[in-house]
Formats: sequence, structure tokens, C-alpha cells
Amino acid sequence: MWRATLLTLFPAMFPGSLGQSLAGRALANGVWSCETLDLRDFGLGRHRQVDDTPFGGGAGMVMRPDVVDAACEAAAPGGRPLIFLTPRGKPLTQALVRDLAAGPGAVLLCGRYEGVDQRVIEAREMIEVSVGDYVLSGGEPAALVLLDACVRLLPGVMGAVESGEEESFSAGLLEYPHYTRPAEWEGRDVPPVLLSGHHAEVAAWRLEESRRATRERRPDLWNRCASHGGALAAAAGTH
Amino acid sequence: MWRATLLTLFPAMFPGSLGQSLAGRALANGVWSCETLDLRDFGLGRHRQVDDTPFGGGAGMVMRPDVVDAACEAAAPGGRPLIFLTPRGKPLTQALVRDLAAGPGAVLLCGRYEGVDQRVIEAREMIEVSVGDYVLSGGEPAALVLLDACVRLLPGVMGAVESGEEESFSAGLLEYPHYTRPAEWEGRDVPPVLLSGHHAEVAAWRLEESRRATRERRPDLWNRCASHGGALAAAAGTH
Repeated sequence: MWRATLLTLFPAMFPGSLGQSLAGRALANGVWSCETLDLRDFGLGRHRQVDDTPFGGGAGMVMRPDVVDAACEAAAPGGRPLIFLTPRGKPLTQALVRDLAAGPGAVLLCGRYEGVDQRVIEAREMIEVSVGDYVLSGGEPAALVLLDACVRLLPGVMGAVESGEEESFSAGLLEYPHYTRPAEWEGRDVPPVLLSGHHAEVAAWRLEESRRATRERRPDLWNRCASHGGALAAAAGTH
Repeated sequence: MWRATLLTLFPAMFPGSLGQSLAGRALANGVWSCETLDLRDFGLGRHRQVDDTPFGGGAGMVMRPDVVDAACEAAAPGGRPLIFLTPRGKPLTQALVRDLAAGPGAVLLCGRYEGVDQRVIEAREMIEVSVGDYVLSGGEPAALVLLDACVRLLPGVMGAVESGEEESFSAGLLEYPHYTRPAEWEGRDVPPVLLSGHHAEVAAWRLEESRRATRERRPDLWNRCASHGGALAAAAGTH
């Protein structure tokens, strides 16, 4: 069983949307587990204080290292990586998702307030991960996204049919556009090549559309991709 | 009131985690609303079919343009942008979040299966948005992230104290590390400058730490930032 443990001030946010659909079925079937530890339970004093003002001044509150450390200890990570969700982290990629899904699970620290004391991040050798270049109210929505991405890759969660989909991303290109019935809709036709029955031509059209979308929409991915001739060849094979 | 309408096959996923904490309080107070339309209700025939096999062959199913179009019509977007969450989309940034939060709301189409017929994306002039370079089970977790990012910026949702936090991101640099009590923890000290009381030195240290983190962890951001001298100056001001 793939084990997720969430360290959070809002345990009721989990499993949240992951309690439904594919992830929810997998949770009910014991493919993965979703445990929460309430950071408040590790707080200090009568008010269970978890945070304090930042040294050096400034806005917001910072989570105390001793409180977070006690919660990490209670989570008993074992061989599981300890991940702190923060915009300072390395960007979540499908490669990282695959690595995590192939392991025993993860312990996810969800911050609120201004941040978490840097010393406990270092002492616990946390992996700092960012789901994107935007600011969230806390780590909880980011944890839901990371878990969703991992859980769908666990054995038995998706049909074999659907699992091919992510291969295109690993090739470093965006997906080609999709079309289904009706063949004509509101005066808009499906691209004729898709109705031709020529498998090779369909594959070539899709690869070109993937390349065009990547070039136009994501020059950052395109430039990284262009330096890997192998990636383009791989993309042709998976479509 | 900022209005969110979600087009989804899993309406029970909303408001989900957004029903709690800051976003939940703002929802209860009428700062924003969270309406769902079940795509299944717009499905065809006795089985309320919403998808079909892709033209040109391949794995998975594609959502029909007529079904999605009917749901868009029912959502009555008015002046609100219609957003389709897809890894083919433009990356969600804090700038886009700010634009959306400043508007009247959004209609969010959450795809499942392989994708959505491209013709309805074009006909409805949807904005295709990606929350990151990873594959999710559907658009729902991405929608939760986008909404969380927007809602926290709505007037009255965050205290004025916390709202300064995101400014550092808009400067194109990662945040500096945070420290709080105790000043010594498990043999680890807080950087002495933070205890010095010299505001200018603290500000200089934090800016340098922001620069160092960005350079080391996110060369992509750093290179973009380096071409904008103004951004660095702005960062110094907000810390």
C-alpha cells in the first residue's frame, strides 16, 4: 500500500476530492492510504501555539521548528520522502511524480502563514516542491494536486488504456488536439486526415500538431526539447 | 460577489478544501460563490453519454463538443472568462491569478478522459490554462488550485498583513528563508543578522538570499528576472 501522511492545520481537507472518482476507489480498495496529523496537536502551551513572529521582522507568522519537528517524528516517515510544499521548491514534474509513485509513499508538510522555519526543513532534509509559480493560501491544495498525480500512476488505479496518455508529456511535447463525434458540428469539421484511415498520416499529423502547440504555447519546453533529438523520436512512437 | 461556475462530472468535489479556512469563511460570507453544473446532465440519450472515441484512433475517450457546448451555454458566463484546465494550456502565473481575481469570476471546464473536442474549445474561445507540467486525473484538482489562488486575493479574504507575501513573487524572485523562535534549536542558530535589529542589513540579507535561492533553484526564473532590472529593485522594496 502506498502511504500518504499529511501534516496540516486543516486535516478535514483530506482526502477531499481524492475521496472520489479513480483516487477514491483506489483509497477504498486499499491501493493507497491517506492519514493526517494535525499540527495543532504538537503546538505549545495552553493555546497549542504552532507559530511565532519572524526574526528580522516582517509580515505574517512562521511555523516553529520544534513543533514541525515533533509532527515529522510522529509521522514515522520510514523510507518515505518528506516533502514540504512551497513556492520556493523545485517545480513538480511528471518525472518526479513517477519517482514518488514508484516509492513507498510520502509525508507531506502543508504550511500556512508566512512559512516554516528553515532549520527544520534542513534538519529533516525535506524535499521542497512547488506545484507552480503562483501563491496559494497554504500547502493543502498543492498536496491534493501532488497526490492526485501520484495516485493515478499506482498499479490498478487506471485502466491500461488511459495510462498511455502521460507518455506524451514525458516526451517533452504538449498533447495534440482531440476530436470526436459528430464529424461536423456547428459548421466546424474534424481535420480530414483523422477520417482518412491512414495510420501513418494520422501519426504524422498528430506529431506535427504536438510540435506546433509546444513551439507556439511553450517556447520554454520547446527549447529544452529541441536539444534532445531522442525525445521527439519517442513522441512519435507514443502517439 | 466573485462567481465561480464549475463544469464537471464530479460536482461533489466542490467546494472541497475551499469550503474551509480562509476560502471557506469567504464563501460563507458571500465574498464568492461556487456553483457546479454536472456535465452528465447535458449528456445524450438514455445513458447520458458525454464522450466518444477519438477520430483517428488512439487510447481513451474524448468529450463531445455538443455536450460541452450545452453546458457552457447553461453556465451563462456573462462577462466571465471560460477557462479549460489542460496541460496544453498556458502556465498559470500569479499575474493571471491577479487578472482573474480582479474580474467578475470564472467558468471552469474540468475535463476527464483523454480530452475535450478541440472545436468547442475554439468556438467558445476558452482560455486553456495549465497549473503545471504534470498529468492529473482530471481538471478538478487543477480548478481547486486556481480558485484557491484567486479567492485569497479577493477583498476582505486575507488580512492586510498577509497580503504582502505575494508581492515577492511578482518581483520574479523566490522568497527568502524564514526563522522564528527558539533562536537556538537543536544546535542550529538563526542567522545573526536577523537578530541584529539593523533593518537595512536585514533587508539586504533577505534580498541576497532571495537572489541566491532563485539563481540556484530556478535558473529559468533567474534568467527572465535578470533581463528586468526593475524587478530586482521592486523586490528590495517589498521585503
